Amino acid sequence: MNFPSKLIENAVAEFASLPGIGKKTALRLVLHLLKQPKEEVEKFSFNISRMRNEIKFCKECHNISDADVCSICNNPHRKHEQICVVENLRDVIAIENTAQYSGVYHVLNGVISPIDGIGPDELNIQSLLNRVEKNEVKELIMALNPTMEGDTTIFYISKQLQNSSVKITSIARGIAFGGELEYVDEYTLARSLATRLPYEKYLVNGK
Amino acid sequence: MNFPSKLIENAVAEFASLPGIGKKTALRLVLHLLKQPKEEVEKFSFNISRMRNEIKFCKECHNISDADVCSICNNPHRKHEQICVVENLRDVIAIENTAQYSGVYHVLNGVISPIDGIGPDELNIQSLLNRVEKNEVKELIMALNPTMEGDTTIFYISKQLQNSSVKITSIARGIAFGGELEYVDEYTLARSLATRLPYEKYLVNGK
Repeated sequence: MNFPSKLIENAVAEFASLPGIGKKTALRLVLHLLKQPKEEVEKFSFNISRMRNEIKFCKECHNISDADVCSICNNPHRKHEQICVVENLRDVIAIENTAQYSGVYHVLNGVISPIDGIGPDELNIQSLLNRVEKNEVKELIMALNPTMEGDTTIFYISKQLQNSSVKITSIARGIAFGGELEYVDEYTLARSLATRLPYEKYLVNGK
Repeated sequence: MNFPSKLIENAVAEFASLPGIGKKTALRLVLHLLKQPKEEVEKFSFNISRMRNEIKFCKECHNISDADVCSICNNPHRKHEQICVVENLRDVIAIENTAQYSGVYHVLNGVISPIDGIGPDELNIQSLLNRVEKNEVKELIMALNPTMEGDTTIFYISKQLQNSSVKITSIARGIAFGGELEYVDEYTLARSLATRLPYEKYLVNGK
């Protein structure tokens, strides 16, 4: 695609470098911004560069944060003896949006994946073990994606903690609400049969 | 959606204000930028705010431009007696990408649409009439979208120029290459029958 303006071409190239945005979409976004007042576009670019420059990572749980310790770790009303271990920030947001969890988090920043060259040392695992040792952590809830890499990571962490009294649990795998039995893969269906619950626990919130 | 960081929340809100980008996509883009080096993100926001602040509109054809006169109007190898009238910049880019047009453009910046409160005075029509009068323009090629508003605009411009010797043409409407007769609407099919061409002109480039 040829552009009559170098300025437009550069701006389109920037948008097109984002995942899932092609040249045509990028051009549409640029033309949209061209129609906005200058101050709006200034605010747009300011908020984005500020986000990247000022963001911090919580030194407790490695979640992104505006301060040294994130608002979740800083909250005295949350159960600090319960840690939910997740892969990344997106999972924290997903769990927070359920409004059903009152413990704290630990963001591993990935999962063990030898094929991608990611071993335990590349992840925030040592700091998790330190947290478990130092504080009085009663439960680690593993909320990792149900993949081979996720399961390997759970296995590795549980091995490291085998002499500890901490209880390690995993979020339930089964058939999603609204899902249909006939479209579920055999493995999930088999596991959800094997890990069946008394029917009164089946209801939302266990009520 | 709740975010653990105000900085992230602001950046997500900026992306989500763009057309066709929802909150989830916006978050994905923000997390992508978070993983990039700071200089890259700085360049991203710089190129966007610079584009908005420094862009100019060509005083000849109203196309966007880095200078007072755009690179197309400034090109002595283009036929300045042939003006292609388009609705917006996107159409200029689309026609330029065919690499088949060697004249210049005139960007109306919209079409006449009384229902949206857009009359001839809101568009770059007077400057087009001035250009036709001042320069030795031989042909105006109307490349507007085949809508009621587009046709109204063509009609209005042709009325204004009825005492001029300029030739007014419109791009051909018919069945697209690769299109199938049975799926074409009746109006297009009827028009493409009525405006049929000798078969040797049917081939691409008229060769």
